[in-house]
Amino acid sequence: MRHNRRFYKSVFLTSGTLACLLGTAMIGAAQDFKDLQTPKSPLVLKAQGSFFVGGETADETAVELGSFGPAGHITINQMYVRYMIPMHAEKKPSVVMVHGMTLTGKSWETTPDGRMGWDEYFVRKGHAVYVPDQVSRGRSGFNQAIFNNVRAGATPPAQQPALPRFSDEVCWPNFRFGPKPGVAYPDERFPVAAANELSKQGIPDANASLPTPNPSFKALSDLAGQLEDTVLMGHSQGGTFPLSAALVNTAGIKAMILVEPGTCPAAYTNEQIAKLAAIPILVVFGDHLDTATGIPRLPYWQASFDECKAFIARIKSAGGNAQMLWPPDQGIRGNSHMIMQDKNSFEIADLILSWIDKNVGKDKAKK
Amino acid sequence: MRHNRRFYKSVFLTSGTLACLLGTAMIGAAQDFKDLQTPKSPLVLKAQGSFFVGGETADETAVELGSFGPAGHITINQMYVRYMIPMHAEKKPSVVMVHGMTLTGKSWETTPDGRMGWDEYFVRKGHAVYVPDQVSRGRSGFNQAIFNNVRAGATPPAQQPALPRFSDEVCWPNFRFGPKPGVAYPDERFPVAAANELSKQGIPDANASLPTPNPSFKALSDLAGQLEDTVLMGHSQGGTFPLSAALVNTAGIKAMILVEPGTCPAAYTNEQIAKLAAIPILVVFGDHLDTATGIPRLPYWQASFDECKAFIARIKSAGGNAQMLWPPDQGIRGNSHMIMQDKNSFEIADLILSWIDKNVGKDKAKK
Repeated sequence: MRHNRRFYKSVFLTSGTLACLLGTAMIGAAQDFKDLQTPKSPLVLKAQGSFFVGGETADETAVELGSFGPAGHITINQMYVRYMIPMHAEKKPSVVMVHGMTLTGKSWETTPDGRMGWDEYFVRKGHAVYVPDQVSRGRSGFNQAIFNNVRAGATPPAQQPALPRFSDEVCWPNFRFGPKPGVAYPDERFPVAAANELSKQGIPDANASLPTPNPSFKALSDLAGQLEDTVLMGHSQGGTFPLSAALVNTAGIKAMILVEPGTCPAAYTNEQIAKLAAIPILVVFGDHLDTATGIPRLPYWQASFDECKAFIARIKSAGGNAQMLWPPDQGIRGNSHMIMQDKNSFEIADLILSWIDKNVGKDKAKK
Repeated sequence: MRHNRRFYKSVFLTSGTLACLLGTAMIGAAQDFKDLQTPKSPLVLKAQGSFFVGGETADETAVELGSFGPAGHITINQMYVRYMIPMHAEKKPSVVMVHGMTLTGKSWETTPDGRMGWDEYFVRKGHAVYVPDQVSRGRSGFNQAIFNNVRAGATPPAQQPALPRFSDEVCWPNFRFGPKPGVAYPDERFPVAAANELSKQGIPDANASLPTPNPSFKALSDLAGQLEDTVLMGHSQGGTFPLSAALVNTAGIKAMILVEPGTCPAAYTNEQIAKLAAIPILVVFGDHLDTATGIPRLPYWQASFDECKAFIARIKSAGGNAQMLWPPDQGIRGNSHMIMQDKNSFEIADLILSWIDKNVGKDKAKK
């Protein structure tokens, strides 16, 4: 492991093409374990581990179980959660970090260029941190029954849920690394030389296989209820999950932080807005919102930003505490959609931590 | 979080039926965060985080990408690895822990009944620990292309890989909790009252979607090469992965520990045996090997045990150091297939740690 910041000596992109990173060659050699940074001071944890929230029993046929044994029961719709608890975490609220589309809890861990993730950074700032994999993704798994039924000819293929993944060429503009694949903005904060490491974080998104409502909503609400004073933070697709969890049950949810949410739904009723307005809300967006995303149905992030501004106005009208954190307002330019992995990720984290201290910390300190 | 060992007050199975645990009810309430144990002393880490090993670029069509954008490139066959490094880890070899079929790295984390997993236990004993998700599972993801092609009608459904999961009724005898579902052995060491929490660890096994050879083999070999002095430990389906990794390249592999491997292949050539015999090998099996598994093609674990005894004999004949650790030989009865989660998991870990100290530790101490 190394202690300096610069590596990938041979690859530096500002105006190259994505072909530098891609092609048919193996890219496994791009990052070695020795490329990861070692913090200057030890991490002291009261506890760490993992557990599940939610889950229900399904009765499945032999075919649905992949024909490895007879018909029987399995658990589906459970949510995996990994946690790290610092010493004296009782002084500050817990923080739950929910990832986005085609991604997993890895989003919040070691960054693509080998720096400390927000998971550990928030722990070092005194918060217990909980990182789930959304139900249907990663270690939470998904219900494989329909896939095995299609394989056996028992279900028409067209009924099989799609399993989307973002291509590297879609990620680049959609995550606002630059105007087109391989071309970075001059002020870009994402570590673009390590974009191939972000590519490895992608996995198939089985959300289309889930029942309605998405079981992650209740699981997150239940998690907050178990942990008591909790900040629910979600990113991108998961950006609205804190709102959806609060609409199930607000118990335990002391704040909601929406990081680059895909939307801030205009369809909420006044009753729903009133419920959400009881909880402090912070919305965070990066820069370059007018970059074309490369996805026809999602042309520009500016639309999401504008929706969230309107949402904040509604929450305020209902007497709530809601705020937009847009770093360019403070002269911080060039942040991407993957803002927790950007080169100034600690600077952004500090702004969020300061907001938590001001808006949530006081309640906790009373205990 | 609690500090005593007994919970699940309302459920205690010795001769009940699995219906006590299953049925159609939500089982999410079975384990709360407060049920998890807090260690008596802090965990002090030099570093922790996650990274990927391996991965290659695939050029996929819009359909193969789930039609969320145009054709493009993604990374496939990468292996996610989470790590924890204690202070002064340079004195002992690193330990890599590979999980089994339909499972993820979660196998080695907090146990179903809320006790510390082997991942943290080995760290507290001075070893840096690396826990991957096998390629095709969990946070490593899988290649979704063929599933999306089947959905679109471009590939016949019968060509779609099966996605097996073990039912709870198969797990019970197959993992040797007792002679039939819901009935535990009087001396059973698995925390059977928490069997529903183990059920949540199951996810679809996409190994059938992988190319040959399984990319995890090279990824594990590469990981050992990066880490240098490394003990590769695998469980069940992953039990032979250390052998497969060593046959790719032995560099960095200082020992191999096969925990309840499904097989110890009799088909290895003498040349392969000679290569493997250069590395110390420990094989570990639990008790009750004559329990019928509930899976016709895998009738009894006794067959795996016998194969491994023959394998050990071949390694020894080739001049190697190989040993069977069978706890009943030492009067320790009742261990299950999920031996790292059994109630005496630390007792078993101590036997393995002692073997590492005797067979691997000396090399490392010279440094």
